[in-house]
Amino acid sequence: MSKEITSRQQDYSQWYNDLILKGGLADYSAVRGCMVIKPYGFALWENMRDVLDKMFKDTGHVNAYFPLFVPKSLFEAEETNAEGFAKECAIVTHYRLKADPNIKGKLIVDPEAKLEEELVVRPTSEAIIWNTYKGWIQSYRDLPILVNQWANVVRWEMRTRLFLRTAEFLWQEGHTAHATKEEAIIETEKMLDVYADFVENWMALPVIKGIKTPNERFAGADETYCIEALMQDGKALQAGTSHFLGQNFAKAFDVKFSDMHNKLDYVWATSWGVSTRLIGGLVMAHSDDDGLILPPKIAPTQVVIVPIYKGETEKNLIDEKVNSIIQQLKQLNIRVKYDDSDNARPGWKFAEYEMKGVPIRIAIGARDLANNVAEIARRDTKEKTSVSLDGLSNHIQNLLQTIQQNMFDKAKAYRDEHITNANTWDEFLQILDNKTGFVNAHWDGTPETEEKIKELAKATIRCIPLNNKQEEGICILTGKPSKQRVLFARAY
Amino acid sequence: MSKEITSRQQDYSQWYNDLILKGGLADYSAVRGCMVIKPYGFALWENMRDVLDKMFKDTGHVNAYFPLFVPKSLFEAEETNAEGFAKECAIVTHYRLKADPNIKGKLIVDPEAKLEEELVVRPTSEAIIWNTYKGWIQSYRDLPILVNQWANVVRWEMRTRLFLRTAEFLWQEGHTAHATKEEAIIETEKMLDVYADFVENWMALPVIKGIKTPNERFAGADETYCIEALMQDGKALQAGTSHFLGQNFAKAFDVKFSDMHNKLDYVWATSWGVSTRLIGGLVMAHSDDDGLILPPKIAPTQVVIVPIYKGETEKNLIDEKVNSIIQQLKQLNIRVKYDDSDNARPGWKFAEYEMKGVPIRIAIGARDLANNVAEIARRDTKEKTSVSLDGLSNHIQNLLQTIQQNMFDKAKAYRDEHITNANTWDEFLQILDNKTGFVNAHWDGTPETEEKIKELAKATIRCIPLNNKQEEGICILTGKPSKQRVLFARAY
Repeated sequence: MSKEITSRQQDYSQWYNDLILKGGLADYSAVRGCMVIKPYGFALWENMRDVLDKMFKDTGHVNAYFPLFVPKSLFEAEETNAEGFAKECAIVTHYRLKADPNIKGKLIVDPEAKLEEELVVRPTSEAIIWNTYKGWIQSYRDLPILVNQWANVVRWEMRTRLFLRTAEFLWQEGHTAHATKEEAIIETEKMLDVYADFVENWMALPVIKGIKTPNERFAGADETYCIEALMQDGKALQAGTSHFLGQNFAKAFDVKFSDMHNKLDYVWATSWGVSTRLIGGLVMAHSDDDGLILPPKIAPTQVVIVPIYKGETEKNLIDEKVNSIIQQLKQLNIRVKYDDSDNARPGWKFAEYEMKGVPIRIAIGARDLANNVAEIARRDTKEKTSVSLDGLSNHIQNLLQTIQQNMFDKAKAYRDEHITNANTWDEFLQILDNKTGFVNAHWDGTPETEEKIKELAKATIRCIPLNNKQEEGICILTGKPSKQRVLFARAY
Repeated sequence: MSKEITSRQQDYSQWYNDLILKGGLADYSAVRGCMVIKPYGFALWENMRDVLDKMFKDTGHVNAYFPLFVPKSLFEAEETNAEGFAKECAIVTHYRLKADPNIKGKLIVDPEAKLEEELVVRPTSEAIIWNTYKGWIQSYRDLPILVNQWANVVRWEMRTRLFLRTAEFLWQEGHTAHATKEEAIIETEKMLDVYADFVENWMALPVIKGIKTPNERFAGADETYCIEALMQDGKALQAGTSHFLGQNFAKAFDVKFSDMHNKLDYVWATSWGVSTRLIGGLVMAHSDDDGLILPPKIAPTQVVIVPIYKGETEKNLIDEKVNSIIQQLKQLNIRVKYDDSDNARPGWKFAEYEMKGVPIRIAIGARDLANNVAEIARRDTKEKTSVSLDGLSNHIQNLLQTIQQNMFDKAKAYRDEHITNANTWDEFLQILDNKTGFVNAHWDGTPETEEKIKELAKATIRCIPLNNKQEEGICILTGKPSKQRVLFARAY
C-alpha cells in the first residue's frame, strides 16, 4: 500500500491529518488557514447538506442569501456580538489594485481606492440580516420569518486544523424572527432537535444536548443550546449550536412589530448553525488506522465493486454479471461504483477504498462467478463473507443498515463508557489525563471558577445537559455548594 | 392592487426594478452594490442550480470548493487575467478590529493586524485553482480534471443593477484540465451546449451561440464562447460563457504533466460559468406590465389554487376537493400551493400571483364545485377557461408544457424578428436606435474599428455566431473588405 497512515496510538493528530489528505477529503491551500475541499470531501458535504436542507424545509424554513460583507457600522451595532468576533475578522479596506510602478507585472493596492467605510467579511450574519429584517417586518402578520442561508464565513483563527477550525468554512445559518419569546424558544429547541436527529441518525454519532454556560455562549445570545459529541481520543467536539437571541438584535437594529392589539414591541430572534466542522467530527469519531469509515447514509459511495480476473474473457463474464448487480442496487437507490480500471491491482484498490471509508466492498472473481457468489467486505468490522449472488441486492441493502446501526452503537458505547463522575479535584484531573472523555462534576456556578478550572485543567464546561439531574454537592475546585453536576471535557 | 408596477413603455428600467422588488425576488442591501436574494428569488435560483448541477454531473463533472481569497502574488501570476480584474477587486488588508479609543462602543481597524500579503476576494477562481492543480497533476493519468464550484464572487462594479450586475453574485465556475488542446476545445464547446440547452429548454429563452472577438474575450482566455439572448427592450444579454484557456494558466502556475511517452508538457485548460445574472435575463425576457412570468419548468410554484367562498360550509367543501386535486398534482411532481389564507380577498391574491409569475392559477368557488369545474388562468396569455375537475391534473400537466413551449416560441419570434441586416452606417444606427435588437453587419475585423463603433454607436459585437455564413462585403464603418457579418447590439 502506497499511502501510509500514521496510527492513532503514534500520533492522533497526525493520523487525523493523514486521513483527511490521503482519503481525498481536503487539501491545504495557498491561503493561510483556508482549505480546498476536494471532490470526495465535497460529495460527502453535499449529502449532508441535502439531508439537512430537507429537514429545514420540512420544518417550515426557506432559503435566502445575504451579502458576504458587513459594513463596520452595522457590525458594531450589537455590541456583545461585535466584541465576540472583532478579534478575528477579515477586513476589506480597498476596492482596486493597480500596476506597481516599480516592478513590471506586479500589482499593488491602489491607495486612491480606499473605502469610506470598511467592510467585514461575515464571520456570522446576524448583523446584516437583522438590518435587512428591519425592512421586512412591520406587523405580526409578517412573522414568523423562518429563513436559512447556506454560505461561506470567515473567522481569522490563529490555530487552524483541516475541517475542525479553518479561517473560511462552509455552513448554514438559520435566522428566525418571532412575535413572542415562547415561540422563539420553541424554535431554538426545535432546531437543536433537528441537529441531534441529523448527527445521530445520519452521521451515526451520539450527542448530548445541553445548554452552554454564560461564558461559553454565542456572543449576543441570551441562551446557547448545543450538541456535544465525543471523539476517539476522548476529547469533546461541539457539533452544532442553536441560539435564543432574545431581543438583542431587534434592539440593536430597531426592529419592532405591531401586535394584534396595535402595540409595538421588539421582535424575538433565534439563530442556529452547523458547518463543515461536522466532517472533522465524523472522521475523528469513526475512522481507524486503515482510513476513513463513513456511515452508509451519507457516504458518497456506499458500495464499490472490484473485479478480479485474468484476461478479456473472464473480464467480460464478470462485467455482464456486475452490470446486472449494479442495476439492481441502483433500483434500491444505493450509490455504487464499479472500479474496473486496469491501472491498479485489486489489492491496491482494496486498500484505496478502505482508506476512503466505502462501507461495503464487493469482490468478484471468475471462480466466484462459477459458484454464484461474491465476497463481501464490511469496512466497519473488516469482516469478509461469501454471499450468494441470488438476492445480493437485498443483502447489501440490509447490510448498509446494519453497518449504520453498528457504527452508532459502537460510538455510543464508547461515549457512554467515557462519562465519568468526579467528586474531587484530584479525581477530576486523573480522569481528564488518563481515562479522558466527559467528566460529570459539581461546579459552584460562577464564571470565575469556570475560568479557573479551564486554566488549571484545560477543560471547559461543554454543557449543562437538558433535563439535568438536580443533586446537592460541592464544587470540585472551590468546595462551595452546588445544585447539579455539569459536563466538563477537553475539547476541539 | 396595492403594488403598482411602472409599465415597460413608461420606464423599462424602473419596470425591471419594480418586478424584482415587488415580485419578491431580491432586495437592496446596506452594502453598496450587493443585494439580498429573497426566499422566492432563491427558490428560483435553487431550481436553476439543481438542473444545471445535474447536467454538469451527467457530463462527468464533480463539485469541489476552493478558498474565497486569492493571495495577491497568485492573483497577479497570469498577467492578462490579473489586468482584467485588478480594477474591480475587493481587497482584504487586515484581520482584526479593535475598540475605538475615542468613541465607546465603536470599532476601528487594528493597524497592528495588517496582513503581510493582501488577499483579493475572488472575482473568479482560475488563479487559486490552478495553483492547487499544480499539486494534483503529475501524469496524464491524473487528467482530465473535471471540477465545478458553486460559489460567491465579488467584482467591484461601478454601476450595479439587481441580478444583472452586482458587486457580489452567486455563480458556478467549471475549471477543467486536459492533456490535449483538442480535448480542451471539445470540453469548451460541450459546456456551451449545456448552457444553451439549459437556457433554451428550461428558461424558455432562445440563444445564439458564438465566439467573442479578442476585445471581448475573458481576460486570460485564448477563445471565449458565449450564448447571447435578447431582452424585450431590444438589448442583448450575455447569458453564459465558456472559455478555452489554452496553456495560459498552466504556464503561469507551472502545471506540467508527463504524457504516455514520458514527455513533459503544460496542461490545457477551460473554464465556464453562469450566474444569478440569468435571473435578470429571465425577468427581462418574459415578464409583462402585470409582473413576472416564470417558465413552468423552473418556477418555484407552478400552480396556485385560490378558493372563493362565503362561510365555513362552502370553505370545507372546497377544501376537501382541493386536497384531492393537490394530491393528484403532487403525484405528477407538480409544485402546487393552496392559498386559503383569510387575510386577503381573491382579487388581491390573483394580482399577487400574477405579480409573482406563477404559471397557472386555479380558482374554485362553490358554484364551480356544483358544476364540477374550476377556472384555470394562464399567466403567459392571461386566458381563462373553465375546465372539468375530471382529469384536471392531466390537463394541468399538459398546460404547463404548453406554457413552457409558448414562452419559448414567443421569445424566439421576438428575437428572430430582431435580427436585422445593416449595410451602411446610417442603416446601422437607425436600426439600433429605432427597431433595436441584433444587427448583422460587416466589420473589417480590427479591434480599432470595433472600439470606434462601440464609441460612436454604443453597440458591441455580441458574437461571431458559430458556423457563421462566409460572405464578402464591406465594413459598415470603414468600408474596408470583410469576409463575414457579425452580430452587433447594445447590451446589458
